[in-house]
Formats: sequence, structure tokens, C-alpha cells
Amino acid sequence: MPTYKAPVEDVQFLLNDVFHIERYANLPGFADSSPDVVDAILGEAAKLSEHVLTPLNRIGDTEGCKRSADGSVTTPTGFKDAFRQIVEGGWIGISAPPEFGGQGLPMVMTQLVNEFLCSANMAFAMYPGLTQGAIAALIAHGTAEQQAAYLPKMIAGEWTGTMNLTEPHCGTDLGLLRAKAVKQPDGSYKSTGTKIFISAGEHDLAPNIIHLVLARIEGAPEGTRGISLFVAPKFLPNPDGSLGARNAVSCGSLEEKMGIHGNSTCVMNYDGATGWLLGEANRGLAAMFVMMNEARLGVAVQGLAQSEVAYQNAAAYAKERLQGRAMSGSKYTDKPADPILVHPDVRRTLMTIKSFNEAARALVVWTALASDLHRRAAADKTRQAADDHMGLLTPVLKGVLTDLGFANAVMAQQIFGGHGYIVEHGMEQFVRDARIAMIYEGANGIQALDLVGRKLPKDGGRALQAFLAEVTGFIKEQGADAAMKPYTEPLGKSLGHLQQATMWFVANAMAKPDNAGAGSTDYMHMFGLVALGYMWAKMVAVAQAKLKAGNGAAARMNAKLVTGRFFMERMLPETAAQLARIQAGAGSTMELPDEMF
Amino acid sequence: MPTYKAPVEDVQFLLNDVFHIERYANLPGFADSSPDVVDAILGEAAKLSEHVLTPLNRIGDTEGCKRSADGSVTTPTGFKDAFRQIVEGGWIGISAPPEFGGQGLPMVMTQLVNEFLCSANMAFAMYPGLTQGAIAALIAHGTAEQQAAYLPKMIAGEWTGTMNLTEPHCGTDLGLLRAKAVKQPDGSYKSTGTKIFISAGEHDLAPNIIHLVLARIEGAPEGTRGISLFVAPKFLPNPDGSLGARNAVSCGSLEEKMGIHGNSTCVMNYDGATGWLLGEANRGLAAMFVMMNEARLGVAVQGLAQSEVAYQNAAAYAKERLQGRAMSGSKYTDKPADPILVHPDVRRTLMTIKSFNEAARALVVWTALASDLHRRAAADKTRQAADDHMGLLTPVLKGVLTDLGFANAVMAQQIFGGHGYIVEHGMEQFVRDARIAMIYEGANGIQALDLVGRKLPKDGGRALQAFLAEVTGFIKEQGADAAMKPYTEPLGKSLGHLQQATMWFVANAMAKPDNAGAGSTDYMHMFGLVALGYMWAKMVAVAQAKLKAGNGAAARMNAKLVTGRFFMERMLPETAAQLARIQAGAGSTMELPDEMF
Repeated sequence: MPTYKAPVEDVQFLLNDVFHIERYANLPGFADSSPDVVDAILGEAAKLSEHVLTPLNRIGDTEGCKRSADGSVTTPTGFKDAFRQIVEGGWIGISAPPEFGGQGLPMVMTQLVNEFLCSANMAFAMYPGLTQGAIAALIAHGTAEQQAAYLPKMIAGEWTGTMNLTEPHCGTDLGLLRAKAVKQPDGSYKSTGTKIFISAGEHDLAPNIIHLVLARIEGAPEGTRGISLFVAPKFLPNPDGSLGARNAVSCGSLEEKMGIHGNSTCVMNYDGATGWLLGEANRGLAAMFVMMNEARLGVAVQGLAQSEVAYQNAAAYAKERLQGRAMSGSKYTDKPADPILVHPDVRRTLMTIKSFNEAARALVVWTALASDLHRRAAADKTRQAADDHMGLLTPVLKGVLTDLGFANAVMAQQIFGGHGYIVEHGMEQFVRDARIAMIYEGANGIQALDLVGRKLPKDGGRALQAFLAEVTGFIKEQGADAAMKPYTEPLGKSLGHLQQATMWFVANAMAKPDNAGAGSTDYMHMFGLVALGYMWAKMVAVAQAKLKAGNGAAARMNAKLVTGRFFMERMLPETAAQLARIQAGAGSTMELPDEMF
Repeated sequence: MPTYKAPVEDVQFLLNDVFHIERYANLPGFADSSPDVVDAILGEAAKLSEHVLTPLNRIGDTEGCKRSADGSVTTPTGFKDAFRQIVEGGWIGISAPPEFGGQGLPMVMTQLVNEFLCSANMAFAMYPGLTQGAIAALIAHGTAEQQAAYLPKMIAGEWTGTMNLTEPHCGTDLGLLRAKAVKQPDGSYKSTGTKIFISAGEHDLAPNIIHLVLARIEGAPEGTRGISLFVAPKFLPNPDGSLGARNAVSCGSLEEKMGIHGNSTCVMNYDGATGWLLGEANRGLAAMFVMMNEARLGVAVQGLAQSEVAYQNAAAYAKERLQGRAMSGSKYTDKPADPILVHPDVRRTLMTIKSFNEAARALVVWTALASDLHRRAAADKTRQAADDHMGLLTPVLKGVLTDLGFANAVMAQQIFGGHGYIVEHGMEQFVRDARIAMIYEGANGIQALDLVGRKLPKDGGRALQAFLAEVTGFIKEQGADAAMKPYTEPLGKSLGHLQQATMWFVANAMAKPDNAGAGSTDYMHMFGLVALGYMWAKMVAVAQAKLKAGNGAAARMNAKLVTGRFFMERMLPETAAQLARIQAGAGSTMELPDEMF
């Protein structure tokens, strides 16, 4: 049975020592995030994750969700009680506006808490997570009336939310979508169509479910410019907030899937379901994309979360499982064999995962803080820089943290040998659950295209220039310090590769866009390695300062130096190979005639 | 529902054009492998795989095996009938000695047929596959009496076989094993103990199951030098070959696992089970390892097989699924969108898998032929060179073909977007099934250690020198041809990296073995890329000659040139990164104190 311990100390190190959130105390919500409040929140989230959600993870996987003939869906044993604790703790609304009952804390707190919840039980954490997404859309686009009707209930967790985009024939290319909405005399719309892959589309955790659904108003233009966003609740709320008539939207079936069995993935049938326009007509896709950055960052966190919990269990197993002897001579002569942690290949595997996890968490904090600054900073310039950062880094985090999160779960499973393949150890569930994060909220190939095709050229490359300038500045500033050289030098080399790759696109992809497409995934991963490497350099600089000052936590700070060096020596060399692949261009990739595949 | 078409033409290209098996016509068994016999066998194996086994793959996954209270195990619907067809076709014995009813054909035919069977239904193919392993052990170590009692029935497929090595506390480190064998007055032994992860340990496909089991004879030395191999049938055969008494060996439970649900993975309880020594007392581990090369090559084939079938389905989907428009302008203006095959990132993914599959198949043929030459060639020198090749390449094939086979199945699944995560499309089953091949028959980390720690230094590095000389010779010979330069140059560069990595081990791992251990997995994968690259160079040289001669198959031969170039441009650059990681040494890998993991 897998266990989990929330990495609270690591989070505190990031918030306090690396990113100094106290400097934002003048911004709305941050003033309330004093260290003791933050510690209390992290402590409570850790308890909930470790003691309530972790034990339900295997149960959720085994039982799955069940649909009855009447279309109702039952979640696995224990999920209802756990969701009650989510509601009682106010966890859905920790970053939501206080005027609707939220706590107004920075978004970074929500992302950090979500890491804990997702490590403990990803399928479960999706229920509150999707509700947070729907809340964001209502905040951005709802009328005052809509906000009053839905937000307090959803922020409290009394009602949950969903996103209905995908149809059987279209996911990535939403311009093809067919769901229809017909305007009614009272201003409402009746929607008809089939939506698939709707997470938390139907369940027994809350009495009402607020569906946000994309559909095409009768007579609207074809393609992406004729899509509107609607809010269509399962039960139409009465003016007093009580539940009224049952709406004509129902779960037609549950998808059988590879993992996240505890989350209900529904085919949703809209049979003239009543809904109201959310935002402007025909601007539904733009409305959906407003909250895309946060949603994608949330999925990136899922990748990190599975990597973290898989790592913890693999590390524990490696210390406990006795098999063979160290190559450099027996280490534990009192035992029949050494624990497998002595073997360099086992340790290399664990260091690979560990060096990812700690840097990925830093990248999440950095980017979530940008999301807060974008919304809360006073100066236009700060808000714009933060928005640039979010736009540029979000596809990188989504693509890289979920690809590597999955790869790490596979590596952690490998540590268990044959036992890793057996259900009872839980490692194979982490692999199956982690797999979805590479696919949903825009498959990772789409993230790479978004990065290369949209985010790089946007505003004349302003966001990229700012990123490059920041990392270059850091390397210059720290490079004089001999103790930092083992970190800044490899980082500088990989940063150079990123610059060369970017220049190569500038020179070769204008005339032939396939050259960008064929190199996009490598570019995204190269960007990710540079960003993770930068996080390591920042963390190491802090760790060295703390060690010099001698103010405690020496073992943890020394571990940062070693783990950071491992990342530089073992992870960053990959950027040279990525550059070579990108510079190979689209030639051999595109040349084969279709019929030869 | 996934489909499968056996790559018969590609196999014929390898056997006839690339490896010219006709030149071995003077060796036992090869004379019977005339092109028409080979074509007939491949054709029949293709039919069986495509029409009988493919439709059972999903059923096997969904139903799994079931154990009844009496310990009997039922296989999924249709498996019994399919196994009857395996028996009737004589498929288990195609390479087995004719004196026991086999067809005596080269081992390469068995491996090629196994690729087809495993692509169609890996869980099913394990039943005959394990029987082939047990047959090999009985041929190598059985007395005349044992061979007469078991081989005809097993080669015919009337009885099946198993291997019982692993115990709950030991898998890799068999020196720790505890199963006991007590000698009886009649010369037999009574074995007691628990074995786990026993594939095909109990089932309803055949009336008898012949277990090969490792146990320690009472009073034997501790560690690996006190382990003996026994043959312990489920039913003790009477002298006339009929089934006698039920032996005290039974299936205690079935493991619940991530995949290969159609294969019964048993906990086997030995409660004083009667068995007979197979080979010498206390030499059981060596006896087991004699057939290890073929068994590991068989697992490598499973990696290729899952990559191949996953590729075929992903390519079909990419041609059929309409989504978005080509970056270089719409390709199919008559359709609402272009098929996703137009997108460079989709094509890059498919080319990555395709360029692996075709080279991996060549590597299997090359190595299986070495296994045949080792057993059948007349000259000592040829036999020794073939044995050297097998010893050196087997861990590379097992480790690299299963790691990349799994990675490719994951990539193929990604092509399907959200649909890839849904059970009904079958892509997620390929991923779950492929995962086990990285673990069993020696986890891939162990393959890397075997390569670096044993196979490289063996006989003064003779096997490696021969491999390097062959590839160097080929590059020299072909390098003068301008049309070959795009292939031989990158191959030469990666070969140089392999030589540098080897020299680095020589210089740095003698004094500090951890330096070898920390680089072993990278070295194995680098070796794999060089070997696959060499296969591409060989295939391209043949394709160019065939194109020049104008003797047909121009489209297929041109595709070889493109796919080979893709491999050189996109896969081989990785060796530079692998070299850098190896040369980083064990420092940061080993430095962290145990308690910081």
C-alpha cells in the first residue's frame, strides 16, 4: 500500500527563501498569507491528503464510478465523506474572491495545495479542481446575476462544476463542433448535442452540477468564430437558491479508461438543455481560453504530483528491499544483502526523479506567482510582465511536467522490479493515472505548437526576451562566485542551445512552417530543461547562502547542492541532442508519402 | 478495435536481401528453409496472428484468468481453441530437434514467428513461449530418459512448461532463495517453498504442465553455488506417457497486475512436490543461464512486437482522424479538416516509431542468426564469434528494445489524444502489456549491468572488438559512396561516442566500479542506438543497390532511404548526450546520504 507525505518543508523553502513572498505583502490577499497562515494551510492540506485521501486512492481505482440505469453516478466508497471534508475546510475557495465567500489568498496557495491533493489521490482531486476551473470562468465572464446565483455555492463546494468542450469527432480542433443552441423567447438557450470525456460530469458528491458547455447558436458562423459558451446547471436554480427543475442534460455512459477510475468521465447528452450565455455570443472559445493558463498549470501540477508520490514510494522501497551487494563492497554486512539503494543505477533513477520534482515545484511556484501578479499587481508593467511569463511558461510546464511526471512514475515503478507490475503495490496506478495528464487540457504536442507557433512570436518575442534576459542576468550575477560555477556554466551552455534553436526557427521556419512543427516538441522540452535548470541555480544560490550563514537545515541545504549538481550533470546534456534534432529540420520527417505509413 | 497485419514483406527483405540466409544452406535446418518454405511459414503465422489471436487480445485483457477454489485456473474465452491451433500447426516446435518431433528450422524463424504472435496477443503468446524456454533447458541438461519423457509432448504442445525462479524476497539476487529439496531413496527430490510471478504456472490449455524449479538441496552451500534445477511436473507421467499421480505443486493465487491479463501469473506452492534433478546438483543457476540469451531475445521481441502493433494502429488513426489544417496550407480541401498525419509533430512521432521498428527487427534477425550459427556452424571460429555476438548483444536487445518498445507504445497512444486513454481503442492495453517486458527476464537495469560489468570485459573485450571492427569496416567500405555518406557519417560519429564511453569506463571504472554502474543504462542505450544505426546503414545500402538495379519494390526501398535518414538525423544525436552523462561519473549520483532520499 503506497504512502505519502506532503513536502511541506520544501514548499516553505520555496515560498520563503527562494521566492520571498513576503515582498508581495502589499498586494491583495498576500497580506493574509503571513508565514503562520501559510504554515497552517499547508499543515491542514497535508493532513487531509495524507490521512484522508491517500487511503482512498487504491479504493477509487479498484471500485471506479458506477452509472445506474437512471443515469445517476455513484463515486467510490469514501469519496463522499472526503468531499464533505473538502467543503468543510473551504478548500475549493482558498484563492476565490472574498465577496463570494472565498478566502482571497494567492493562486500559488491553491496550486501548492492541489499538488498535495493530487499526489494523494489524483482522481479525487479532479472534482474540486474542475469546480475551480468553472469558478474562474464565471468570475471572468458571468453577469452579476450569474455570479450571485452560482459563485457562492460553487466556492463553498455545495455545487460542483464541469467543462464541456470535446465531441466525438473533435477535441483539438473545436472549430468542427456541432452542439447546437437555440434561443428561447425568455433569453435562455436550449442546447442539443453530445459531449465526451466530461470529467466529473455526473456524480453523487453534490446536489447540483454546473456545466459550462460550448455550442453553436443557430445561424452562427462555421468554425471557431461561431462558438458560444453557456452555463447549463443539472438542476435549474430557483431565485432563492434552492433546486428547481431537472435540466435535460444527463450522463449517457461512463468511459472505461486506463486510469483515474475514481473520477467519473462521462458522455453527456444535451437534449434541449436550458442554458444561459456566458460572455458574448460567438466568443465562447476566447472565453474558454481566458482560464486556460490556470487550468493547464493545474495539469502540470498533476504531473509533478504523480512524480512526487511515485518517488517517495520508490525511495522507501529502495531502502528496504535487500538484493545483491554494492559494487564497491558490501555496505550492510549484518544483513543477508544490501538494500538496493546502494546500486548506482537505482540511485541514478531516484536522483533523476528527485532532481526533477524539486525544480518542477519551484517552476510551479514561480509561474503561479506570476498568475497572482498578473491579477493583483498595481503597476501595469508588472502585470504585463507576469502575463507574458504565464503565457510563455504555461505550455512548457504543461507539456514538460506531465511528460516527465509520467516518465518518472514509470522509472519509480521500475525500482520495484516485478512487484511494480502488481496492483497491490500501487506503483502501476501512479503510471496509469499520470498518463492522462499528457493528453487532456491540450495534448502535449499542442502545447509544443502553442509555444513555438504562438507564444514565441507574440509581441515581437517580448516574453521570450524577458525570460532569456532574466536567466542571462542571473548567470552573470552569480557566475563570479566559484561555488556557483558548476551550476551556472552548464546552465549557460543549455541557455545557449535554447538561443540557437530559437534563432534557427527564426531563420528557417518563416518560409517553411513545418521546420517549426517538426522541432516543436524538442524545443518545448529544451525550454523545460533550461527553466528547471534555472530553478536549480536559484535554489542552490539560496542554499549556499543559508549554509554560509549557518542558520540550520544544513543537511537539507547540502542535499540541494548535490541534487542540483546531478541535474546539471545528468539532465542538461540533453539540450545538445535536442538542438541537433531541431536543426535537422523537417526534411526526413515530412518526406514519406502518406501511403507508406 | 485494434487491427494487425504481420510485416511479412519486411521480414522477407531482411532474410533474403539484407542477411542472405541462403548462404547458410549448408547448415543443419537451413537447407529446409528455402524461400518457399519460409514464405509458407510466415504466411501461416501471419494468418493465425491476424485472424485468430488479434481478436482475442482485448477479450484476454478484459476477462483475465480466473482461479477456482480448487486451485485450477481458467484462461479467457477463446484461448483454449487458439492454443489448439498452435498445437495443430506445430508452432511450438518449429526450431526444435526433429528427433523429438520438431521441425529443426533455424531459431531465427521462431523469433520472427514470435514477433507476429506477440503483436497479435502478447499474453497468449507467452504460453507457447515459456514452453519453448523449458524445452531449451531440457535439451541442454536433460538425461536421455528425461528428454524422452518430456520433449516429444512439450514440442508437440500437448504439455506446456514453466520457469520457477522468483520468491517473494528474491528475484534478481537468486542467491537468497529458500525453496528446499530433499532427496528421496528413489533418487527423486521433494521440493518445498513458494515461488511467485510464475507465468503460465497453472491453466486449462493443456492436461499437464512441466515446472522447472530452482531449489536448494538440503545441506547445500548458501548463496548462488547451492542452487539446483529440478523438473517437477503437475502430473507425474507414467512410463507409457499417460498421466499419473497429481504432484504436490499448486497455484495458491493469481497476481493482479497492470497488464498481460490473459496470461496466468501464479503464486506456486510446492508442498513436498516430487521432482528430479535437471543437470548437476548445485549448478542450477548456470543451467538456467544457458538458455537465458534466447529467453531474453524473446522478451526483446515482445518490445518490438508491441511497438509494431501500436504503430500500425496509430498510423491508421492518423490517416483517418480529421482535425485542424496543415501548417503549410490545407491538404484535403474537400474534407472539413485534414487528417492529422499532415501535422509535423504527428509525423515525427510516427517516424520515430517506424524507424525503430524496422531496425529493431533487423537486429533481432541478426542476433537470432548468431544464435543459430552458435549452435549449428561447422567451424569453431564461427561458433565462437556467434556466441560472442549473442552474449554481447542480448542484454542490449533486451534492455533497449523493451524500453523503446514501451516508449513507442506510449507515443502511439498519444496520437489518439483522449481516445487513446479509453479502453475500447486498445492503445492503452499495448502500453500496459509492453510495460512488463522492461521488468521480467532480468530488469533492464540488470541488463545494463550485465553488459557493462560482464560482457564488455569478458575474454579481454573480444566480443566488443569484433562488433566495433564490423561496424568500422562497414563504414570504411561504404563511406566512399556519396549516396551512403548521410548514413555512414552520423553512424561513425555515434560509433566514436561508443568508443569514447568504453575508454572512459576502462580508465575510470576499474578503481571505482560505481562509475560504470552510474553510466550503465546510458551505455546500454548508446550501444542500442549504434547497433540500430548500423542496421539502418546496412538496409539502406541494400535498398540503394536494389533501386539502382531497378528490380521492383521502388516505393518500399525509397521509404527505407527516408526512414533510415530520419533515424540518423533524429535518433543518433542522443549518443552525444549519453556520452556526456557517462563522463559525468558517479559523483553526484552517489553523494547524497541515504536518509536524504
